Amino acid sequence: MRLSITRADLARVLTNVGRVIESRNTMPILSNVLLSAKDGRLQVTGTDLDIVATDATAADVTESGSICVDAKLLADISKKAGGDISISMEGDRLVVKSGRSRFALPTLAAADLPTFGADDYTASFEADLAALFAPVAFAIGNDANRPYLHGVFFHVMDGKAVAVATNGHRLARHTGQELPEFDGVIVPQKAVGMLPKGLAQVSVNENIIRIVFGDFTLTSKLIDGTFPDYRRVIPTENDLVASAEKDDLLKASDRVATVSSERGNAVKLSIAPGAIALTVNSVERGEAADEVQAEYSGKPVDIGFNSIYFRDALQVFPAGLVNLALRDSGSPALITSPVYPALDITLMPMRV
Amino acid sequence: MRLSITRADLARVLTNVGRVIESRNTMPILSNVLLSAKDGRLQVTGTDLDIVATDATAADVTESGSICVDAKLLADISKKAGGDISISMEGDRLVVKSGRSRFALPTLAAADLPTFGADDYTASFEADLAALFAPVAFAIGNDANRPYLHGVFFHVMDGKAVAVATNGHRLARHTGQELPEFDGVIVPQKAVGMLPKGLAQVSVNENIIRIVFGDFTLTSKLIDGTFPDYRRVIPTENDLVASAEKDDLLKASDRVATVSSERGNAVKLSIAPGAIALTVNSVERGEAADEVQAEYSGKPVDIGFNSIYFRDALQVFPAGLVNLALRDSGSPALITSPVYPALDITLMPMRV
Repeated sequence: MRLSITRADLARVLTNVGRVIESRNTMPILSNVLLSAKDGRLQVTGTDLDIVATDATAADVTESGSICVDAKLLADISKKAGGDISISMEGDRLVVKSGRSRFALPTLAAADLPTFGADDYTASFEADLAALFAPVAFAIGNDANRPYLHGVFFHVMDGKAVAVATNGHRLARHTGQELPEFDGVIVPQKAVGMLPKGLAQVSVNENIIRIVFGDFTLTSKLIDGTFPDYRRVIPTENDLVASAEKDDLLKASDRVATVSSERGNAVKLSIAPGAIALTVNSVERGEAADEVQAEYSGKPVDIGFNSIYFRDALQVFPAGLVNLALRDSGSPALITSPVYPALDITLMPMRV
Repeated sequence: MRLSITRADLARVLTNVGRVIESRNTMPILSNVLLSAKDGRLQVTGTDLDIVATDATAADVTESGSICVDAKLLADISKKAGGDISISMEGDRLVVKSGRSRFALPTLAAADLPTFGADDYTASFEADLAALFAPVAFAIGNDANRPYLHGVFFHVMDGKAVAVATNGHRLARHTGQELPEFDGVIVPQKAVGMLPKGLAQVSVNENIIRIVFGDFTLTSKLIDGTFPDYRRVIPTENDLVASAEKDDLLKASDRVATVSSERGNAVKLSIAPGAIALTVNSVERGEAADEVQAEYSGKPVDIGFNSIYFRDALQVFPAGLVNLALRDSGSPALITSPVYPALDITLMPMRV
């Protein structure tokens, strides 16, 4: 292998791929990236065994070849380099030169990096998954006993892309563009966080999802399990509807959440014509109360939510009105926005 | 206690004092600040038992009083408040109001907050300790067996203020303004990091240092111990002197340190007329070499330093030339700058 490349190009592909690489690994190879130089291009690949990320960039390749080298080390070298970088093999060392600097880095064989892929995908389409998943990702669960909640359930409903995430106490659903039918898949949280922004080529089968965006490819194993039948959870007949400015309600819920513990004390919402009063009561941290103006014409009703969940839910809505639809104090509530009907969030009540 | 105060004023004094407060405390009172309202002022005090920090600001006090309340909770409330804040006691709760928000916070008695001070100080003068200590603070030691190195040794030498810090392998000395004579003191690292920037009123005795800057007062216990006789360590007869641009040498030392472990592999400097070559050799992480232009007219000489210490030492010098003065490969080296003679750094050599 022998090539030269601009510092910026090398740093960029190593940063993009480096996000998949864990900082602590029991297998040394997983701290490495695979460099593959061929036909005027340098391809860089990294993995954590569940996700494989690949990016590529133009390079002046005078001798093709492949080798594995420590990802963070090469990224640090490329960031600190004073100018263009030349890369070549000398014995079993990767020699990296820039200006008067010269590095000789230990390597591992190209074949040592575990990768995976698929021969065939059952569906393939264009979609902006980053935008589709973004407003529901906060609701992903982390209960070790329910691994099937550790990701976003991505599927097609009535011909449209739908992303759903829940931890059993809150559920977020976001509907997107029209898509061809395929069997729903659960995309793990880490892959959700690495999705490239913009319209990408997406392919899925029952085990794997692949997202190709320009030279960048993300291939992730899917979570093996059955996502719960979430539609039974989302209330459809909640006719006590209060409307308030999202920013007012978010600020008030953030203020009263100050006295909440990290796990979230309950916030009590007292809804009456004209106003929603919010109160949080913590034995150790005291009481907090706030109030926001609201449109409401039903009978006065109180309901409690986890104060952290309530604040998180409001946060993903755009500015403008939000509607809080209740059935009664003991039933799930639905939060929607008249300015953004593609998103709804269901919150389980807490006794207050 | 009853007062009203602007959100910005309250947030500012709580931030200044909050830096002394540890996030985890076995004694609940240490998570608190003491609020004292009197004569148109609110004074706020926090401590970690070793340092007491106090700040004060104007407030509209209609009823004087003192009480302790959770520091982070009150700081969060003040940051999120929508406008001016009113504070009063209701029973044993501190009631904090702003706009439509109302908080009732648990309190502890004002007398519960442990504080300390001194009746008399043996010396008192004006000095900018932040500026004096800044270039040596990096060299503070952390060896549990040598607690007397866990701070900056502040004393007067030949009529001038001197700050020294060392971990036994590197030693930094910074000389400042003229000061009256007093017995040298060791200021602990945490207090060094909290020093107010600018000319302040400083008082010391053998146990305590107090720095008063406007309304802000920092009182810190001193480290009990004897600082080593550092002057015996600083070389005075190193006549092999190489000069190089600090930025060139810093960048090169930073680049070769890339392959060093966190504890610091040795960097070998090969000094010859015209250039200093730097090399780091790590079994696990490979080799790195770099070179910078240098003025040198002595015989070629090699010397090794901890690569991290060498980089750290260069970092505190201003731009321009630095002089690296050696005696031989096995003796301490001295780094100075002709453009900033107030600072010198001694590095112990490492075998390479």
